[in-house]
Amino acid sequence: MKDKFAIGIDVGGTNTKFGIVNRKGEILLQDRIKTNDKDSVHGFISELAGKLKPMIDEYGGAGAFVGIGMGAPNANYYKGTIEYAANLKWKGVIPMAELLEKEFSIPVKMTNDANAAAVGEHKYGIAKNMNDFIMITLGTGVGSGIIIDGKIVIGHNGFAGELGHVIVRHDGRLHKGTGLRGALESYASATGLRDTAIEILQNNPDTPSLLRGFTIDALTSETVFNCAKQGDPLANQVFEFTGEILGEALATFVLFSAPEAIVLFGGLTKAGDLIMKPTRQAMEANLLQVFKNQVKILFSDLNEADAAILGASALVW
Amino acid sequence: MKDKFAIGIDVGGTNTKFGIVNRKGEILLQDRIKTNDKDSVHGFISELAGKLKPMIDEYGGAGAFVGIGMGAPNANYYKGTIEYAANLKWKGVIPMAELLEKEFSIPVKMTNDANAAAVGEHKYGIAKNMNDFIMITLGTGVGSGIIIDGKIVIGHNGFAGELGHVIVRHDGRLHKGTGLRGALESYASATGLRDTAIEILQNNPDTPSLLRGFTIDALTSETVFNCAKQGDPLANQVFEFTGEILGEALATFVLFSAPEAIVLFGGLTKAGDLIMKPTRQAMEANLLQVFKNQVKILFSDLNEADAAILGASALVW
Repeated sequence: MKDKFAIGIDVGGTNTKFGIVNRKGEILLQDRIKTNDKDSVHGFISELAGKLKPMIDEYGGAGAFVGIGMGAPNANYYKGTIEYAANLKWKGVIPMAELLEKEFSIPVKMTNDANAAAVGEHKYGIAKNMNDFIMITLGTGVGSGIIIDGKIVIGHNGFAGELGHVIVRHDGRLHKGTGLRGALESYASATGLRDTAIEILQNNPDTPSLLRGFTIDALTSETVFNCAKQGDPLANQVFEFTGEILGEALATFVLFSAPEAIVLFGGLTKAGDLIMKPTRQAMEANLLQVFKNQVKILFSDLNEADAAILGASALVW
Repeated sequence: MKDKFAIGIDVGGTNTKFGIVNRKGEILLQDRIKTNDKDSVHGFISELAGKLKPMIDEYGGAGAFVGIGMGAPNANYYKGTIEYAANLKWKGVIPMAELLEKEFSIPVKMTNDANAAAVGEHKYGIAKNMNDFIMITLGTGVGSGIIIDGKIVIGHNGFAGELGHVIVRHDGRLHKGTGLRGALESYASATGLRDTAIEILQNNPDTPSLLRGFTIDALTSETVFNCAKQGDPLANQVFEFTGEILGEALATFVLFSAPEAIVLFGGLTKAGDLIMKPTRQAMEANLLQVFKNQVKILFSDLNEADAAILGASALVW
């Protein structure tokens, strides 16, 4: 029994990462597929099975596994479903746990992808000794996982911790996935950052910028980052604006659960101080007196793929 | 021992209510004083003592009391302090628990006034069987108490649940107490509603309204309510605008803890459907798909003074 393994699967807006994890939290094998390559969830599962089944066999077959833990956008902990996920091709209510159990003959537990990342951070990462923190994932979308008194907040219907959809600008940018205007995700995600870059280029037609050398398709959060590092003023402005909105949102989150820290995770954190400085400044400027200079903003110190897989796998132990 | 009593004290922006409570949750005696009548906290405590000490003596003196529970704005559960409360005259950090213990020789526990109200609602009110709900108090200010898994959220520094200070309008109304712009409290409190009335009157100079018959000082949330009930269009617009902002904010709160219900409490709830309808509509319009038609908005069914006193007293058992 003590040799049993877990599988962690992290469904992101772009990539799905998965791995085999032992009880000590070591990832023994891992791989990834594109999340939205296939139009149907069945196509997704058969592509996943094509890679994951040989890995399972290598570690003794289905019987050697305690369970599959999956983190996914809009995943429901109680029902094992993915429901109306804004950044996935599969619309409506997907009975993911049931489909996976049928495919792999291993029990499945699911939660919101950012909840899983928070669990990983709490077990193995920079928040190891923290009872109260909020994890914000800044990737294709913006996700969150909230730990209060050492436990992940699940909520009455299993969907707690969807802070990417908090409205930060009344009547602001339209989010195509949700139909809501002015949500944090429309600004502080990789996509939002790119939209900001386009807006700033259009609003400053006479200001030269390295960003003007890219086609719309080549303009990504990475290219904006590279231009900002080279001192491009408009590219820097993109990060300042993004950090300003993110920091204001964090000040609001602090009012809710008074966390010890906010842990940032995901693609945008690669920008380091370019995103951290304006975020911290805007958070402090918008904090209520009793919270000023008390709440840390930290970057996750776990490798991105590892944290997500570890967190998802931790659901099954 | 089984005859011991508790004292509940609720410090509001306008009134401080207090009472003697038995173990069954019956309020045996109660009274109130104005919170801000005296400039110093010492003046406040001696006025409180003048009324409360005879009540204590009537029930057997200090020795017959298990403790004093106090709910107050910006109260710190861990330190027994009131810190930088926006709506109180006492500025800075007030060591309230220590001052009360010296005055009454009875142990003191404190929390945020809205947290205390939430505890009261959970023990005795409409949220009796709910493990996950959010209490919003709409009085002179806007407060909140968050119950997750049946427990009040206190947070790392003891100040969790200050949702009245969430920013709902970027660069919106200035809150004199906090210096922040666009906070919920600047719109959805009794004071905020009055400011909205003044704004709407000024923005519609040619529209006749019953509200124009009042002096600035006589224009209160009650007068606006009375005019709205008589069908006054501008007074109705005031409630619609207030409900719209409140509902948007509630949609944000739902994203955090996915509560079963949001319980509204305090002065503004006396407006009934005038505030409930636009609030519910705006909340639903701004909810993420997975939360639509799932989260109840309820009015507290406890008498206002009772709930606050009961909640505060419940801290000491």
